[in-house]
Amino acid sequence: MSSSPEQSVLATSLRTDTCGLLRAQDVGRTVRLGGWVHRSRDLGGLVFIDLRDRTGLVQLAFGPAWSDAETLRIAAAVGVESVVLCEGEVVAREPERQNPDMLTGTIEVRVTSLRVVGPAVTPALPVARGRGEKMAAEELRLRHRYLDLRRPELQENLVLRHRLLQVSRRFLSDRGYLELETPILTKPTPEGARDYLVPSRVHPGEFYALPQSPQIYKQLFMCCGFDRYFQIARCFRDEDLRADRQPEFTQIDIEASFIEREDILALAEGLIGALWTEAGHSIPAHFDRMSYRDAMEFYGCDRPDLRYDLRLADYTAVFAGLDFAVTTSAIANGARVRGLIVPGGAAWSRKQVDELEALAKSAGAGGLLRLRHADGAYDGPLAKFLTDDARAAFALADGDLALFVAAPDRVSSPALDRVRQECARRLELVDDKLQRFIVVMDFPMFEEDPTTGSLAAVHHPFTAPHAEDMQTFPDQPARWRALAYDVVLNGTELGGGSIRISDPAMQSRMFSLLGIGDVADQERRFGFLLEGLRAGAPPHGGIAFGFDRIAMLLSGAPSLRDVIAFPKTTAARSLFEGAPVAVPPEDLAELHLTVTGSDA
Amino acid sequence: MSSSPEQSVLATSLRTDTCGLLRAQDVGRTVRLGGWVHRSRDLGGLVFIDLRDRTGLVQLAFGPAWSDAETLRIAAAVGVESVVLCEGEVVAREPERQNPDMLTGTIEVRVTSLRVVGPAVTPALPVARGRGEKMAAEELRLRHRYLDLRRPELQENLVLRHRLLQVSRRFLSDRGYLELETPILTKPTPEGARDYLVPSRVHPGEFYALPQSPQIYKQLFMCCGFDRYFQIARCFRDEDLRADRQPEFTQIDIEASFIEREDILALAEGLIGALWTEAGHSIPAHFDRMSYRDAMEFYGCDRPDLRYDLRLADYTAVFAGLDFAVTTSAIANGARVRGLIVPGGAAWSRKQVDELEALAKSAGAGGLLRLRHADGAYDGPLAKFLTDDARAAFALADGDLALFVAAPDRVSSPALDRVRQECARRLELVDDKLQRFIVVMDFPMFEEDPTTGSLAAVHHPFTAPHAEDMQTFPDQPARWRALAYDVVLNGTELGGGSIRISDPAMQSRMFSLLGIGDVADQERRFGFLLEGLRAGAPPHGGIAFGFDRIAMLLSGAPSLRDVIAFPKTTAARSLFEGAPVAVPPEDLAELHLTVTGSDA
Repeated sequence: MSSSPEQSVLATSLRTDTCGLLRAQDVGRTVRLGGWVHRSRDLGGLVFIDLRDRTGLVQLAFGPAWSDAETLRIAAAVGVESVVLCEGEVVAREPERQNPDMLTGTIEVRVTSLRVVGPAVTPALPVARGRGEKMAAEELRLRHRYLDLRRPELQENLVLRHRLLQVSRRFLSDRGYLELETPILTKPTPEGARDYLVPSRVHPGEFYALPQSPQIYKQLFMCCGFDRYFQIARCFRDEDLRADRQPEFTQIDIEASFIEREDILALAEGLIGALWTEAGHSIPAHFDRMSYRDAMEFYGCDRPDLRYDLRLADYTAVFAGLDFAVTTSAIANGARVRGLIVPGGAAWSRKQVDELEALAKSAGAGGLLRLRHADGAYDGPLAKFLTDDARAAFALADGDLALFVAAPDRVSSPALDRVRQECARRLELVDDKLQRFIVVMDFPMFEEDPTTGSLAAVHHPFTAPHAEDMQTFPDQPARWRALAYDVVLNGTELGGGSIRISDPAMQSRMFSLLGIGDVADQERRFGFLLEGLRAGAPPHGGIAFGFDRIAMLLSGAPSLRDVIAFPKTTAARSLFEGAPVAVPPEDLAELHLTVTGSDA
Repeated sequence: MSSSPEQSVLATSLRTDTCGLLRAQDVGRTVRLGGWVHRSRDLGGLVFIDLRDRTGLVQLAFGPAWSDAETLRIAAAVGVESVVLCEGEVVAREPERQNPDMLTGTIEVRVTSLRVVGPAVTPALPVARGRGEKMAAEELRLRHRYLDLRRPELQENLVLRHRLLQVSRRFLSDRGYLELETPILTKPTPEGARDYLVPSRVHPGEFYALPQSPQIYKQLFMCCGFDRYFQIARCFRDEDLRADRQPEFTQIDIEASFIEREDILALAEGLIGALWTEAGHSIPAHFDRMSYRDAMEFYGCDRPDLRYDLRLADYTAVFAGLDFAVTTSAIANGARVRGLIVPGGAAWSRKQVDELEALAKSAGAGGLLRLRHADGAYDGPLAKFLTDDARAAFALADGDLALFVAAPDRVSSPALDRVRQECARRLELVDDKLQRFIVVMDFPMFEEDPTTGSLAAVHHPFTAPHAEDMQTFPDQPARWRALAYDVVLNGTELGGGSIRISDPAMQSRMFSLLGIGDVADQERRFGFLLEGLRAGAPPHGGIAFGFDRIAMLLSGAPSLRDVIAFPKTTAARSLFEGAPVAVPPEDLAELHLTVTGSDA
């Protein structure tokens, strides 16, 4: 009798089977296994070892009836996490000794020979945890990553990540996308965040840069006629790190030619569908589209969480009819009064509503105006100014709490966004099982500095504006919308992209609008893109997904560090290998460099 | 009537079909196409354009009977390499107007509307070449890579590369190998060649290094129990470059646990088979094994080209019986007399044989002793010293030329290797269609410095020696053979690997043998590997294939630069983007660095 098909794939010269795939049907077979001692129990005479490999655990049994004295001695002495090779017979466990918590719990292996091939020192942190036993602190786990990665949770995360990688490539490859590799040693280009620089030994004083993304290369592939490109690309940003960022990260990078926005969005829906399916989720084939304008208007943010329905509304017209000084003067200054109605919020204490106001203030608002409707009465600073019309317009049900911010949109939106999220959290409106995908689009092209009037690109300088906006407002670029789009899930951005500028004259104008007006300067910094566009560029566009984040969401991991084999800390250090490190001055001399010492 | 399945995959909002896939069965269909103007001919009244996209060429026809005046005008004016969108009807060409050289040569598209969406400036080098027209110089092509990459030859190379990438991953993934990503920003480790260093902005005076290979990480994955790993990994070496090297290169990197050498070699045979099959070749399922010793003995090199049969032999015993001063004294000094017999070589002129001797001398030999047998007579300095026994032993046929080197093996092997290759070339023994794969194995562990006696690793310091050699010669490590192996095709190394040391004490001893005897030094440089091994390591080993080289061989390209989208020159420069470049001093100041100027 032979092993299962999965087993035979994993069989080698040193093992016939793997631990976790043995089943009742294997009873009677003589198997050879290799693995790690996960736990062991010496019952005096009988020794039991849970042996672990990538596929799971199986119980090894040692007893005088089938193991010789030497084998018993070794089994009793072997330390946890040591690596052993063994041979024995698969036997059925008696019903009362079966372990329903283990997939291999109906059988055990009666070992006739055992060899310790990789003895282990006492582990610096436990791999096998008892029920309820807490994990070691993350810093300790990162320092001993070679042990932390033995934990089944991390192994499962990385196995899922592997599967997601394969699915991504198959999906794209099947649709005619070509995997084309771009350089890691590339030209420093100013793209907002900072480049990692790499000194050249051969060319003194000259530097390569690690790519922040393959953006220009993928556009060049389109100019060259490759038509459809993808790459699961490593990208690098030397930024001050937040908890949820890594200095190097992986993105699924996509670009296509002769397409319009909906072509890319349909592809994105398909790809996300394939990835979520691989992780066992069933999601809609189509994601609702939402304009940036609506997202900001109704949710105060450009990546709204739609798992709950609290929506912002504009109450300016209602407040305009009230004799309430605060809002009246704000409205006179051009502000709007926006707010949301929270069902059941009237039950919150004054302190609880004060906390919401503190949240709004921390986001920049001057205050949070409240109106409570409970037990048939209205309550709050606004109450005595209410007119019948206003009461009808607010339409508060008994138990409702209305919360308003009177301010310019750029202040009220982030404030109400935070208030909305906190209300949803308090009311337990967030259904963790829901997966609400949307596409947010029609972002503004530019962010205008309110004082200087200078423009910055909201997306990146290669994004095409809506043609109709350029026609309608040829000299008001601040009013142009971008052909950009983000795929958003439950308030998290999964990826984003745009239709690109394919006209070199338009691209040059875009650089000018962004303050790079000098043609020589444009050529020096972006010449290799402009040259490509001038050589005949097709209409093209693309999208990029944050693969680390997707792997994190789909594995249910709490941190990006749990889906990256060897991650860095928020201080951009790898605690395990120990990088970065000082290097000897002679090595730097070869690079024609000296260290100037730290900034004061 | 709709388009073919391939066409429908590539259809978008802007095109119904692609150019190169249109066929006679499409006659009568109205199609929309996008592409590049490859060539155009204006026959006065009639205009023909060969439109190009990724799939190939199709002829567009413009005539007053179906195109309006404006369309005709645009068609006559559009420049080559411009991008157009068009619509028209597929019609059959009259038999005498069919073009058998084009896959689409039985049809053409009668265009009713044409729009130039990406006008092109005059290309700096031609994309469409006439028959026999030479390519531009490589430097010019690299400088204008955005045009060079439009050439169908380079496009085909990169499409094949894409297919090889997908096949590699599917093959390995189907066999339980997990694709696990390793960091690019890693710790500087001394591995022979030089690291590219990356200064940290956050940690003044500290540096990351780009990986020369993921070697230590993949061994750690084995220590962690991932069992089977692969990665198509970018690697970096800051070496003085040879014509056939790139500062960044791609390798198919593989490691597995609980395996022996033959497990890895069987996997390697399967993977190579899958790749060669994808490129249309049928190759043997099994590659012959050859020991390093035999390779050196019979071919004088560790990656012999077996497409032809010329073999070296040891004639020391024969020469020992001759009264020939040169060889007698060499033999007395411990040298051997080795040589090869070249059928038909007796026909070569004295000058031609002198050229062979020059080759042998350039490889370090003192001379090349010749013995010619033609027209029943022996000729050469040796002739008059020949005994009957010697004549019988040499067994020269009429027309044979025998060539000998009397020297230590380390001199005679490379000399006779070069002579052998040149003889094969002259005699046209090399059949370009043959694919002779072999596995060379049992390399020596160490290279011993002949003067100092110090040892250097032939493979790398993580390679395991043969256990039997360590037992037989415990104190003579120079006699140990390594459990290392190379896969060789036609004299080219495709990849290599080894069984690794999994015992931390043995690994530590290996470092000592290689001159890193100080334990603190070992820990500082290799601590994160030693820690992993000490935590319980399984028997493991692996292999790595040079993916760029495989893609080059399978696409028939003459250079690695023809299978890399954006390659660097031998001076490690990217001529197109322009990297490396000087960066402003303020950017360096942020990295706490100053440039010291070039070495004198």
